Amino acid sequence: MIGEKIAKCCLAKDKRCREESMKVNIRIRQATPEDHQRIVEVMRQWWDGRDLSSGLLKIFFHHFQETCFVAENSDTLVGFLVGFFSQSKPEEAYIHFAGVAPEYRRQGVGRALYRRYYTVCQRHGKTVVTSCTSPVNLQSIAYHQRMGFTLVEGNGEVDGFPVFTDYLRPNDPKVLFRLEITD
Amino acid sequence: MIGEKIAKCCLAKDKRCREESMKVNIRIRQATPEDHQRIVEVMRQWWDGRDLSSGLLKIFFHHFQETCFVAENSDTLVGFLVGFFSQSKPEEAYIHFAGVAPEYRRQGVGRALYRRYYTVCQRHGKTVVTSCTSPVNLQSIAYHQRMGFTLVEGNGEVDGFPVFTDYLRPNDPKVLFRLEITD
Repeated sequence: MIGEKIAKCCLAKDKRCREESMKVNIRIRQATPEDHQRIVEVMRQWWDGRDLSSGLLKIFFHHFQETCFVAENSDTLVGFLVGFFSQSKPEEAYIHFAGVAPEYRRQGVGRALYRRYYTVCQRHGKTVVTSCTSPVNLQSIAYHQRMGFTLVEGNGEVDGFPVFTDYLRPNDPKVLFRLEITD
Repeated sequence: MIGEKIAKCCLAKDKRCREESMKVNIRIRQATPEDHQRIVEVMRQWWDGRDLSSGLLKIFFHHFQETCFVAENSDTLVGFLVGFFSQSKPEEAYIHFAGVAPEYRRQGVGRALYRRYYTVCQRHGKTVVTSCTSPVNLQSIAYHQRMGFTLVEGNGEVDGFPVFTDYLRPNDPKVLFRLEITD
């Protein structure tokens, strides 16, 4: 349900605040098509200058609304997750993009977005969540590992990570993640 | 089923051949991830020099295989259709891209691709197919109208066509098509 308030995270915006256990309400809600442009505008900054926004199609926000979320602190966008259910693999849900504003990282925003996503996936009988990233994105790899994802054996290796060499385009290796959400 | 041969179209490759009713076998099959690059390489030519290929994500070929098709004449790619089921609107299926090689147009290839798509949609209980195009693409608008699609009333008008001004990005009006496939 759009606008449903499902998560209140205890967030600390800086070290001083963290020490004082300052609480900030983060609201997670289903994304709407209107959110697409707000997300596109922050992606380059959130991805260390890499502009991946051409891969985030607005059509997802029209047709995959139940699995697309934004996290906001008041009106400020602090995170998002865009996923969909695989139609080729009925048990699988895919996370196409997920990001958290740099100043809101390590405070549970990503975890809250993922959990919200898992809940919807499980409601639809999905038992596996997959996602992928570039092997240069060490932060993303570490994050997925902390979240319990395993790295799928591919057809190559980059910097010690298993990769699929042509997963999204030729000669652009991707690390593929997999998590069972049956528990 | 990948590789299933479902359509034999009676095709004429040029006027002389058409007069002689020369038959060419066109094979339509489910697309595989390996087809993505072949399609990307022809899109600019098939779309009159407009490069829309960044919107054709390979991830569709991993996760929406049942609704992605290629049409081939022997090994030559002559058409494709990439669609998926809306997850927000359970009755609806969306055609993200469909194209036919210029030299194979007006010979039933597109119609065969669309029909193949409708069959899969109906098998999954879908009753509505939607798609969109730019108002500058008069050929696409005329094609959809010939195929029985209606133009959806939007929030604006361009060259006499109803448009949605921000459907896929801001200030980039799109004509939205809709067809009921309950018959």
